[in-house]
Amino acid sequence: MSTKIKRFILPENEIPTAWYNIVADMKNKPLPMLNPTTKQPLKVEELYPLFAEELAGQELNQTDRYIEIPEEVRDMYKYYRSTPLVRAYGLEKALDTPAHIYFKNESVSPVGSHKLNSALAQAYYCKKEGTTNITTETGAGQWGAALSYAAKVFGLELAVYMVKISYEQKPYRRSIMQTFGAQVIASPSMSTHAGRKILTEHPNYQGSLGTAISEAVELAMQTPDCKYTLGSVLNHVFLHQTVIGLEAEKQMEMAGEYPDMVIACFGGGSNFSGLSFPFLRHKLTEGKNVRIIAAEPSSCPKLTRGIFEYDFGDEAGYTPLIPMFTLGHTFSPAHIHAGGLRYHGAGTIVSQLMKDNLMEAVDINQLDSFNAGILFAQTEGIIPAPESCHAIAATINEALKAKEEGTQKTILFNLSGHGLIDMTAYDAFLAGDLSNYELSNEEIAKTVNSLEKIMQ
Amino acid sequence: MSTKIKRFILPENEIPTAWYNIVADMKNKPLPMLNPTTKQPLKVEELYPLFAEELAGQELNQTDRYIEIPEEVRDMYKYYRSTPLVRAYGLEKALDTPAHIYFKNESVSPVGSHKLNSALAQAYYCKKEGTTNITTETGAGQWGAALSYAAKVFGLELAVYMVKISYEQKPYRRSIMQTFGAQVIASPSMSTHAGRKILTEHPNYQGSLGTAISEAVELAMQTPDCKYTLGSVLNHVFLHQTVIGLEAEKQMEMAGEYPDMVIACFGGGSNFSGLSFPFLRHKLTEGKNVRIIAAEPSSCPKLTRGIFEYDFGDEAGYTPLIPMFTLGHTFSPAHIHAGGLRYHGAGTIVSQLMKDNLMEAVDINQLDSFNAGILFAQTEGIIPAPESCHAIAATINEALKAKEEGTQKTILFNLSGHGLIDMTAYDAFLAGDLSNYELSNEEIAKTVNSLEKIMQ
Repeated sequence: MSTKIKRFILPENEIPTAWYNIVADMKNKPLPMLNPTTKQPLKVEELYPLFAEELAGQELNQTDRYIEIPEEVRDMYKYYRSTPLVRAYGLEKALDTPAHIYFKNESVSPVGSHKLNSALAQAYYCKKEGTTNITTETGAGQWGAALSYAAKVFGLELAVYMVKISYEQKPYRRSIMQTFGAQVIASPSMSTHAGRKILTEHPNYQGSLGTAISEAVELAMQTPDCKYTLGSVLNHVFLHQTVIGLEAEKQMEMAGEYPDMVIACFGGGSNFSGLSFPFLRHKLTEGKNVRIIAAEPSSCPKLTRGIFEYDFGDEAGYTPLIPMFTLGHTFSPAHIHAGGLRYHGAGTIVSQLMKDNLMEAVDINQLDSFNAGILFAQTEGIIPAPESCHAIAATINEALKAKEEGTQKTILFNLSGHGLIDMTAYDAFLAGDLSNYELSNEEIAKTVNSLEKIMQ
Repeated sequence: MSTKIKRFILPENEIPTAWYNIVADMKNKPLPMLNPTTKQPLKVEELYPLFAEELAGQELNQTDRYIEIPEEVRDMYKYYRSTPLVRAYGLEKALDTPAHIYFKNESVSPVGSHKLNSALAQAYYCKKEGTTNITTETGAGQWGAALSYAAKVFGLELAVYMVKISYEQKPYRRSIMQTFGAQVIASPSMSTHAGRKILTEHPNYQGSLGTAISEAVELAMQTPDCKYTLGSVLNHVFLHQTVIGLEAEKQMEMAGEYPDMVIACFGGGSNFSGLSFPFLRHKLTEGKNVRIIAAEPSSCPKLTRGIFEYDFGDEAGYTPLIPMFTLGHTFSPAHIHAGGLRYHGAGTIVSQLMKDNLMEAVDINQLDSFNAGILFAQTEGIIPAPESCHAIAATINEALKAKEEGTQKTILFNLSGHGLIDMTAYDAFLAGDLSNYELSNEEIAKTVNSLEKIMQ
């Protein structure tokens, strides 16, 4: 066994120097985002009040295949990149599967997840353009923790609206953000119009990413020298995350294999896009046969049960209209512990890829996700984030299918983060206190039907 | 700045294949452990009831400089080793110091600390010799978490006595051990004679490592096919941890520097020995000029204020008599959050090195340790374990001294673990709720005087 290599790490000079912009390679480009008042395609200048100009430019860039990573960001990447590609021999053995399972271990980033890849980029561009304050929202807190550190690195003040249920379920994440120097507010809060409105209508509302986005956007719009930042959904976020897959591509070469399947959990799409887009590139440009699988929670199934429609990115309706697979921006997801997956929509790029059958999606229920997470912990030693457990569960399903069929498949999945801050979730699971949350067809119909009036 | 390399990782074929046994190079060997009844030097067979035979052999080995790492253990090391050596440019900049600061990042091990290095070795030897069950104690829970995973890897059942104050302060660590499949008992407990005795005398006793060791030893002695394991203090534990320093030695070469100082926090001595012994080797065998500094908490100052004496390793007096710097085995340390440093003694090897002035020790108070930890988090992105904060504080002191003197010093310290499970401690610190615990000379005198009667 000792001749087998377990872990592949790139030398510092092999770390990617440019991000990959998949839109340049897509035959069917994503539909444009629309100005919600005029219903006309959004111009880049319309994004400037909210985002740093370079980020706005990246958001609408459909032509450049590669966009250079600024030196200052690459300098910071070098502290933790490349992250390791690991062959999961322990998990393979436990499953007694002929499949080869690899995972990209983003959990070793200083803040414990892949979110730092885009946080550093966004903080850098904001600082460069003279911004002094930034706002954001966070679900489970992985994005908030990453941005808190990135803001400190580049000398920005940061206010984070944290979804209330996560604020209560994951108090350590709040502490981490505060330790990095950020201000953390439970959302919905009384500090914004959007927060006050939903609290008035639903006094016990436990929050959602959609509401937290509304609050962060509102604060940014009303504060001078302040920009808004987002940890997922948007094209420029997916762009920054491609550093994951670009590395993995080289590391799979080191391992002498090419994946039959690339799997990642799916909330807004950031870790999914990051790992999969560079492999999708081979499919788009070379016709390579690789399955790309998004694993979403069955309690928030926009890809498997939502509809493709123009919708708002936030609950209050402040954002542009986004063409996407969605459950409706007023959808209130169940309180699963995978807080990062509790988002109603899928982002324009992923939605177009899904529409064009270039990728697929599966849904995983909460109990299956934790069963998978515990098996992974006991065989690979790393306690996965509840979000990442969904990718592991989908991987296990495919590995068992390979066993049944007696075929040797190579599976690559993204371990987007560790779950050390989520131990209350594991406690609850081990105590038998967690449930699945299956949505009836009626519930789905009701939530998506609310979308009809938006485009009228 | 981008030409500077931040992180040094060894290729898999450079990972050490043998541990370094410093005793072989010591001119003054450590005094022997004694049988507490006969007061005669302990024979190796007397350790067999408690420890795996190979571990007992390593414990008393004074001749072999290198001891081969079994293939099965090396195979597991490959999942996370080498750990990175990182140049702390961010911290250097914040301190505006001419010093070059490096840290060995053991926090990226799957379980979050260096403890896995010995846990895997101990579990492996126990399994190999037919043991089915093992016991141990844990303070902050780093050792318990590591052993829980190692026990699962090698198919052993594990019972962990966790110091009660940590069990309450760090419930997530308990959850982690349970997720890996271990049984966790708060100590003192009613399940052992030692536990019942101290609970009867002091009903509100919040536990100590000394008491937890008594309980774990007692359970191992009374259970067939069961061995006891320990995460620090003993020679064989220090031996296994030398993989840290052997790697760091090669990594400092990659960086083109040699440390003027090697610094680590000090509880029982495991992470300290692991990093420093391979550098001490250069001092012992080549007369190399390198300062070796142990950073202990001022509330548990055995090296700076204890006495060198034969003492028990545990509170109840079950262990052999160990020649060491100690505060007395009945010393009850204050409830600092650095639970892994709350131990009364220093281990025979380190105590002998201290006596021979081959190393030095400093004490750090709790508030200084957390101030250092927060500066490190904000500049390097990693929230350090409260234990590791002591090493960081000592490093900062030396870096500021270098600045004052205008000399360029190279400092290497051990980041023994991350503090993500210790966020309640950071919360309390940020809220101003933590204190220092300074011991008066009278308190010290009282506790060490209790030792006089042991050897009579």
